[in-house]
Amino acid sequence: MKRAGEAGGTPAASDQAARPPVVGMVGAGQLARMTAAAAVGLGVGFRVLAASAAESAAQVSAATVIGDYREPRDLLAFCAGCDVVTFDHEHVPGPLIAAMEHAGTAVRPGAQALRYAQDKLAMRTRVTGLGISCPRFAEVSDLAAVTAFAGQCGWPVVLKAISGGYDGKGVWVCESPGEAADVLAHGIALIAEEYVPFERELAILVARAPSRQGAAYPVVQTVQRDGICREVFAPAPGLADDTAVEAQRLGLRLAAELDVTGLLAVELFETKAGLLVNEVAMRPHNSGHWTIEGSATSQFEQHLRAVLNLPLGATTPLAPAAVMVNILGGDDPDLWSRMTHVLAADPGVKVQLYGKAVRPGRKVGHVTVLGPEPEAAAERARRAASYLALGVEEA
Amino acid sequence: MKRAGEAGGTPAASDQAARPPVVGMVGAGQLARMTAAAAVGLGVGFRVLAASAAESAAQVSAATVIGDYREPRDLLAFCAGCDVVTFDHEHVPGPLIAAMEHAGTAVRPGAQALRYAQDKLAMRTRVTGLGISCPRFAEVSDLAAVTAFAGQCGWPVVLKAISGGYDGKGVWVCESPGEAADVLAHGIALIAEEYVPFERELAILVARAPSRQGAAYPVVQTVQRDGICREVFAPAPGLADDTAVEAQRLGLRLAAELDVTGLLAVELFETKAGLLVNEVAMRPHNSGHWTIEGSATSQFEQHLRAVLNLPLGATTPLAPAAVMVNILGGDDPDLWSRMTHVLAADPGVKVQLYGKAVRPGRKVGHVTVLGPEPEAAAERARRAASYLALGVEEA
Repeated sequence: MKRAGEAGGTPAASDQAARPPVVGMVGAGQLARMTAAAAVGLGVGFRVLAASAAESAAQVSAATVIGDYREPRDLLAFCAGCDVVTFDHEHVPGPLIAAMEHAGTAVRPGAQALRYAQDKLAMRTRVTGLGISCPRFAEVSDLAAVTAFAGQCGWPVVLKAISGGYDGKGVWVCESPGEAADVLAHGIALIAEEYVPFERELAILVARAPSRQGAAYPVVQTVQRDGICREVFAPAPGLADDTAVEAQRLGLRLAAELDVTGLLAVELFETKAGLLVNEVAMRPHNSGHWTIEGSATSQFEQHLRAVLNLPLGATTPLAPAAVMVNILGGDDPDLWSRMTHVLAADPGVKVQLYGKAVRPGRKVGHVTVLGPEPEAAAERARRAASYLALGVEEA
Repeated sequence: MKRAGEAGGTPAASDQAARPPVVGMVGAGQLARMTAAAAVGLGVGFRVLAASAAESAAQVSAATVIGDYREPRDLLAFCAGCDVVTFDHEHVPGPLIAAMEHAGTAVRPGAQALRYAQDKLAMRTRVTGLGISCPRFAEVSDLAAVTAFAGQCGWPVVLKAISGGYDGKGVWVCESPGEAADVLAHGIALIAEEYVPFERELAILVARAPSRQGAAYPVVQTVQRDGICREVFAPAPGLADDTAVEAQRLGLRLAAELDVTGLLAVELFETKAGLLVNEVAMRPHNSGHWTIEGSATSQFEQHLRAVLNLPLGATTPLAPAAVMVNILGGDDPDLWSRMTHVLAADPGVKVQLYGKAVRPGRKVGHVTVLGPEPEAAAERARRAASYLALGVEEA
């Protein structure tokens, strides 16, 4: 037993021993903001690297560092104050992540894993190589390659930026060679993918720690519009048990094969022929926001536990159904003025606001409702999100 | 519909309209810390008035103001940056609270209500005057008054400091005139109370908004040792329905009669003759910590909603039983080193650490476990709390 200040140990040494670790998150969007809230409960230090003090997470973080994640100096200075560094987005260039590791920072996930979240061609190649089904794909650098691909898979052809896309940006569904030519004219590196006539979209969220412990959340259904996640149903309604198990195994296996530390979200297409991997992300994910209220352990706490190499928390749902609906900004920025009505109309809805300036189509918050079955929960969540965004209740 | 910067409204005016309010909390202990986490989700501004940057809430708050809550200048400067001001403790002197109100600050709860949380004689007199049962009491300024009181109610006599007590401090159970004389020798203002042979202790937590909306949480059982809350069972096991309803009505009525805005916690003795009011507090309360994981709306979010005059949230429990066990510091300050074992041993326990330096007997965190029934949940929570505090699992 030690006491602070006792003979044989300086107070500083005892303080050191008792000090919980500090997690740094590069990026200060809503994912970092919600991670900050989870860090409070877990009692760990938390700081963010933000572009400005106005960013979503910077508003609520006691230790915001202002800097540019593309600047090696800013990034390495940020790392120096952290025991572990993780990410709110995928945009830090690979060579910089390698430089952080080279400087001795515990970067989780590491550069080798993150590569597959940053480079869709590398991801498709690797996942396919593991025998896990993906949409058919090809690297394409000119129209001849796209039309050759269409000759195999038919039109439409999906063109995707190999890196830098998010929320539907960097994805083009091309109905014809003419449309493909317009995309090629941007001059960015692309892959072509077959257009998959899926039944619906699912997502599996898993966590993996450096200890190699893994934990999977229930499989959810996501509803996307214009490439942006709009609704999440947890668990995915009516999903066959064997498909759920298959998706969870797929997530855990992929996390292990790619040596992910932290969260791995895998977006899936459910098709008549089985599950196909659509996208992967290695951070808290929109498809896991429901876990704040709906799971024994939120994805944000789970990410912190995983990157700190702490044992992972239970992923038990707290209700038979949880539905999350994103709040996308409308024309009227005065979202706050509509909170009273929404909270009064339904005392059971849980609203998370991100502190972001409202712009049309921008994710500025979300609503979660727990309930005995998904449809009624979805109606309540849609009504609240719609009113907050637009001043109109649309269930 | 308005747009920021549109003709007819300056950007500043639009920003004003869209800006969520800022809540200021005087005091930066663990209650303010957990309130800060709730403010993140609700999307409201939050700042604390802390004595130092090392305090529990100051560690996690993006807007900490360092100052002395006993200094009018510090307090009024703090108020100037807030739309609503509330409290993490009862120690702000009444005249200063009145001065804050006089300066135009929305202080919730207000000075007239807070008086009853700060002055036990005023509280006892008022509560008794409302026809609500309390232990018998008398103001006592000398030994003759104490022995006269004992002549009516018998020994032991409970002597309580009229103001300033907490966590068992300021309460003395005196078995004899000699012991009473020792307490009187401190020279502080006291009341004498009868020693109540209660069956058990209960607590009722309610919220009340300036709109006069009220909401009650389920009645809980609290287990105290040495005047410090050790365990909370939610709901109170085996409580008769009519007693539960009586306690909820009592809490809501008291909140209305005292014009409380924010939370009101009422500690109760359950006796063979019925419920007696023991203590009242007008802030988030240790007996409500279980609501973070166990209720649709945590007490911290509820307090924010109430002081902001927002509609109150549902108080629905998320599991049949929730048990909270406090972590009291032991001899070894290195609490963090024991987290791995606790999280590994039981992935379902939820640990909240307060970031406070560990001192023997000091509240440094708590553990909550949800489950189908209270005894198993209590064993799991006790085991985790005991190991974190002492390095020994004692269920």
